[in-house]
Amino acid sequence: VFGNTGNDSGSGVSFTRDPATGEKILYGEFLLNAQGEDVVAGVRTPEPVLRLQVEMPEVYRQLQDVRHTLESHFHDMQDFEFTVEQGRLFMLQTRNGKRTGFAAVRIAVEMVKEKLISADDAIRRIPADSLSQLLAPVFDASARKTTQVIARGLPAGPGAASGKIYFSANEAEAAAQRGEKVLLVRVETSPEDIRGMLAAEGILTARGGVSSHAALVARQMGKVCVCGASELQIDYSTNTLHVRGQNFRKGDFLSIDGTTGEIFPGEVKTSPSDVVRVLIDKDLTPAESPIYRVFAQLMQWADQRRTMDVRANADQPDQVGHAVAFGAQGVGLCRTEHMFFEGDRIDHVREMILAENADERGKALAKLLPAQRSDFAGIFKALKGLPATIRFLDPPLHEFIPHDEASQRDLAEKLGISVDRVARRVKELHEFNPMLGHRGCRLGIVYPEISEMQARAVFEAAAEVQAAGIKVRPEIMIPLVGFPKELELQIEVVHQVAARVQKERNVKLSYLVGTMIEIPRACVVADEIAKSAQFFSFGTNDLTQTTLGMSRDDAGSFLPRYQEEEIVRQNPFAVLDQGGVGKLMETAVKLGRATRKDIKLGICGEHGGEPDSVKFCHQLGLAYVSCSPFRLPIARLAAAQAALKN
Amino acid sequence: VFGNTGNDSGSGVSFTRDPATGEKILYGEFLLNAQGEDVVAGVRTPEPVLRLQVEMPEVYRQLQDVRHTLESHFHDMQDFEFTVEQGRLFMLQTRNGKRTGFAAVRIAVEMVKEKLISADDAIRRIPADSLSQLLAPVFDASARKTTQVIARGLPAGPGAASGKIYFSANEAEAAAQRGEKVLLVRVETSPEDIRGMLAAEGILTARGGVSSHAALVARQMGKVCVCGASELQIDYSTNTLHVRGQNFRKGDFLSIDGTTGEIFPGEVKTSPSDVVRVLIDKDLTPAESPIYRVFAQLMQWADQRRTMDVRANADQPDQVGHAVAFGAQGVGLCRTEHMFFEGDRIDHVREMILAENADERGKALAKLLPAQRSDFAGIFKALKGLPATIRFLDPPLHEFIPHDEASQRDLAEKLGISVDRVARRVKELHEFNPMLGHRGCRLGIVYPEISEMQARAVFEAAAEVQAAGIKVRPEIMIPLVGFPKELELQIEVVHQVAARVQKERNVKLSYLVGTMIEIPRACVVADEIAKSAQFFSFGTNDLTQTTLGMSRDDAGSFLPRYQEEEIVRQNPFAVLDQGGVGKLMETAVKLGRATRKDIKLGICGEHGGEPDSVKFCHQLGLAYVSCSPFRLPIARLAAAQAALKN
Repeated sequence: VFGNTGNDSGSGVSFTRDPATGEKILYGEFLLNAQGEDVVAGVRTPEPVLRLQVEMPEVYRQLQDVRHTLESHFHDMQDFEFTVEQGRLFMLQTRNGKRTGFAAVRIAVEMVKEKLISADDAIRRIPADSLSQLLAPVFDASARKTTQVIARGLPAGPGAASGKIYFSANEAEAAAQRGEKVLLVRVETSPEDIRGMLAAEGILTARGGVSSHAALVARQMGKVCVCGASELQIDYSTNTLHVRGQNFRKGDFLSIDGTTGEIFPGEVKTSPSDVVRVLIDKDLTPAESPIYRVFAQLMQWADQRRTMDVRANADQPDQVGHAVAFGAQGVGLCRTEHMFFEGDRIDHVREMILAENADERGKALAKLLPAQRSDFAGIFKALKGLPATIRFLDPPLHEFIPHDEASQRDLAEKLGISVDRVARRVKELHEFNPMLGHRGCRLGIVYPEISEMQARAVFEAAAEVQAAGIKVRPEIMIPLVGFPKELELQIEVVHQVAARVQKERNVKLSYLVGTMIEIPRACVVADEIAKSAQFFSFGTNDLTQTTLGMSRDDAGSFLPRYQEEEIVRQNPFAVLDQGGVGKLMETAVKLGRATRKDIKLGICGEHGGEPDSVKFCHQLGLAYVSCSPFRLPIARLAAAQAALKN
Repeated sequence: VFGNTGNDSGSGVSFTRDPATGEKILYGEFLLNAQGEDVVAGVRTPEPVLRLQVEMPEVYRQLQDVRHTLESHFHDMQDFEFTVEQGRLFMLQTRNGKRTGFAAVRIAVEMVKEKLISADDAIRRIPADSLSQLLAPVFDASARKTTQVIARGLPAGPGAASGKIYFSANEAEAAAQRGEKVLLVRVETSPEDIRGMLAAEGILTARGGVSSHAALVARQMGKVCVCGASELQIDYSTNTLHVRGQNFRKGDFLSIDGTTGEIFPGEVKTSPSDVVRVLIDKDLTPAESPIYRVFAQLMQWADQRRTMDVRANADQPDQVGHAVAFGAQGVGLCRTEHMFFEGDRIDHVREMILAENADERGKALAKLLPAQRSDFAGIFKALKGLPATIRFLDPPLHEFIPHDEASQRDLAEKLGISVDRVARRVKELHEFNPMLGHRGCRLGIVYPEISEMQARAVFEAAAEVQAAGIKVRPEIMIPLVGFPKELELQIEVVHQVAARVQKERNVKLSYLVGTMIEIPRACVVADEIAKSAQFFSFGTNDLTQTTLGMSRDDAGSFLPRYQEEEIVRQNPFAVLDQGGVGKLMETAVKLGRATRKDIKLGICGEHGGEPDSVKFCHQLGLAYVSCSPFRLPIARLAAAQAALKN
């Protein structure tokens, strides 16, 4: 057939629905007097296919019929080519159309309503990751067109963010308090930056992969994040950012797209997603938002089908609130140390670290107790009876104390001790490989008073909330256990404190004590560990680092090459390494169950929100996956997909 | 019976042989007119039991008889108590006597000659670690008594050393060249210190465990070493050492006992062991040394019984020579990077690291090639046909470049590049957890030209030595493999270079390529790795670090507490953690053999010279253990003990 035989001929490419929005309209392009290749070649600019309604009304009517025929036959949105030869329509080819995540969700849900497919089909068909597009804030489409990418990093927290750049967490926080929209720009982030991250619209780093501290925390907070943008040259001393010949100073605007990894100069307009506005901001009702209703329908279907629970990694009462709104059935990981940076708590933490004996340490810890207790109480209240897995202090102590001289001097003054003592302690705490150093339960073993304080905070909060008539289900999790005796010693501390608090308050509390399985030794001795652990939660971030002997913060120098050479197919810190880490998890599950048939099993590593990893967890028979609040819808859908597969 | 009934009475404690030297004499103490408790109480000073020959000749004769009776009955050296009541001898009790390692060896060997026990008994009975006492230099006993311990560290390299202290490797080396006896004192050591360590009599560090860099290298060199003496306050800027109120300056004498961990002020006289003088220094003949002959006899018996081979971890031709003298049946681990620091090689290494592209890197590597080749040739010659396992470059590159500004400036000048470029590269190479960073085969994957150069050096050296009529058996070992494809890619490089060199030189070389099993992932995918690996060598140092999630250089802050609390019974970096690391080794052996029935299996971690670990390796069915040259006799004896146990 020939489409170039005059103005009653032509060629076109169309979709049965809009592949960007999912709207049920004929969507495509058409060129009069042209062959198919001319449409794609871009020499002449094609017209919207809707124009045919005017130019060839009969062809247009036939196309509408064809559209329905195709969808009835293929039960999916089609991308088809056609030619009109002297008024006669010829269909050339058709295939399932590519679409945005956004469209994938809407099309699938609407096709169920149209009885074209079943709800099971809809769940099977939607790539679970698509949901991140429904949750993320987006750049205004027209604003986006007026700007150009200046560099790229790794897409680490989906969505769009625009703000004035600041190079320190303190300055970012102060600027946000002045009402500025802020982007925190760092070479890399550390726990000290938490408040600045919280205050920022988005986070941009020059170093670190998709599981770096910045990425982890950003996803958990639902912040936009682009990390490891290695072209950025950040100079803290002059507060400047240099990239591809351009300089940006503190206070200049930048914009980042955490869904694509793109970085733009200047301000680009953004808006929050409907789903977030309905569930979190509550400035939009379901009735006002068709998108939300599509989302809610899909989640309902997914929840009806999945057999695994989903929990959230959340550290603060407000985060827990968001998590519950996103469907969390509990908290799977509360990192207690994230609470250590708020207000004057960090001073008490530092006083504790600088203490020269258990007595001094005890005094500092006593100051920390009320804050921890009130956080836990807030979390228990937000959970309204859902379980909360609370991990005891995990990171090495040097993460909490300042490493530059000026801050050390400030700290020394505040605590009334010599700056030499501060500097000496910083030096003592220095480690060659902090990831493999004095952290996790090793802290609680050497300083049992820390675990005691944390246990007391948990149980006093539990008693308080329970007295207010709310059910409380704390699950205390001891991190980094490798030797059964480590867990036994920490459990003893927990039980002792629990008994004391129950007596003091004259209450009966029910709680579990278990461990994170995050080092290979724990996997191969899981039968022994299960003698005292009431639950296992796989900490697959660290388990990946140790099993692969690969630091997630340093792997950037060779992982890209590894992917090119197909040594690894995916970043193992993003997608669980089933062939390696997964084997050790299988061993742990088998051995754990051999000792304790009904041991509660879950995962709280970042992989808990990644669809393939979620499916693997289902196959392993885990009771739940836990992930950052904004990944919960993805986990719910992936869990449903896994259940349907069986 | 009463020994306090006059001067024809008394009490004594005696050994049937000298428990310190093993000499076959009656050895002990006696108090006239006293009860047994008076002998031990220390109120009165007892006399040597030999005095009885004069004071009570009949009792003395009876004691000599009893001595023989006891040994004939118990077939071991006895520690017995006796009382003389009015000239009549009463034996109170007897038990196997405690003895030094030194005495243990001599007594056992002499008892075989006396037909009191069998050679099998002798081997079973001698704690294998005893042999370190026969090899180590010792403090002169009378000199030792005149001094007092000022601090203690970990006994990391047995023997006694005395010298002037220097705080930098360069100064230590210069002082040794001036003919001074030198102790190198560092907070910790790094590969840059190698030449200073080589020049020193002994090494003393304030930080790091018994598997720290200092300890590892010291043992391999047979150097005395005390490490992790945390009380030492070392100030590099003033070149002083402060400990328990005393100050020592550069050039002051200190003495260290690497068998006990003790540190003494001033100079304490030492002498090398007979065994070392006969085998290494060759300034003593076997005929002149009864101790050496006892040692040699025991080794002969052990070699007849053991089924496992022993190899040495040795990096230089002279070390290989020592290793062969100590009974090595090959080199199990040649760390090629230890050759990188000699002479001007380090400049080429640094040039290679600073290269901005493969071309520049190639030029720098070409300068390194002749040195590597000549080292390998030297090693092959020293081995006279025994196999040599050569590990390709393993440590992260930042270990090779200077981190202080002055040295960076020097380097920049030497290479004719800007100091900024040097500083930038140092910054780029910085890692948060270097142990889990860009090292091992990850270097060879990203920079295949490094592996190519190393392969070429091996094969050209092999061709050269083979042409001289000496058999050559290189076994190339790829480090830190976790993914099968890593090994495949590196093997391809090796085979290509081998083919090229064989063609160029018109020779036929036989060689093996295999891998170190040192990260948990390798253990669980060993079946896949064995498809291309011709051998596995367990790198239990790193396998322990990754399996336990524990950095050996940082574990000092909690391991002592772990031993107190009985969480671990022994330091897992000294004694293989059979319950954890051992389980993964079992998995690797099983899987490896499932794919390749006759796969060659060995161990080259430091555990290869630790008796319990050697026995575990025997049970696993490994073909050999490899350890530092000075631990070889221990490994030989432990392997024989393991064989006898079966």
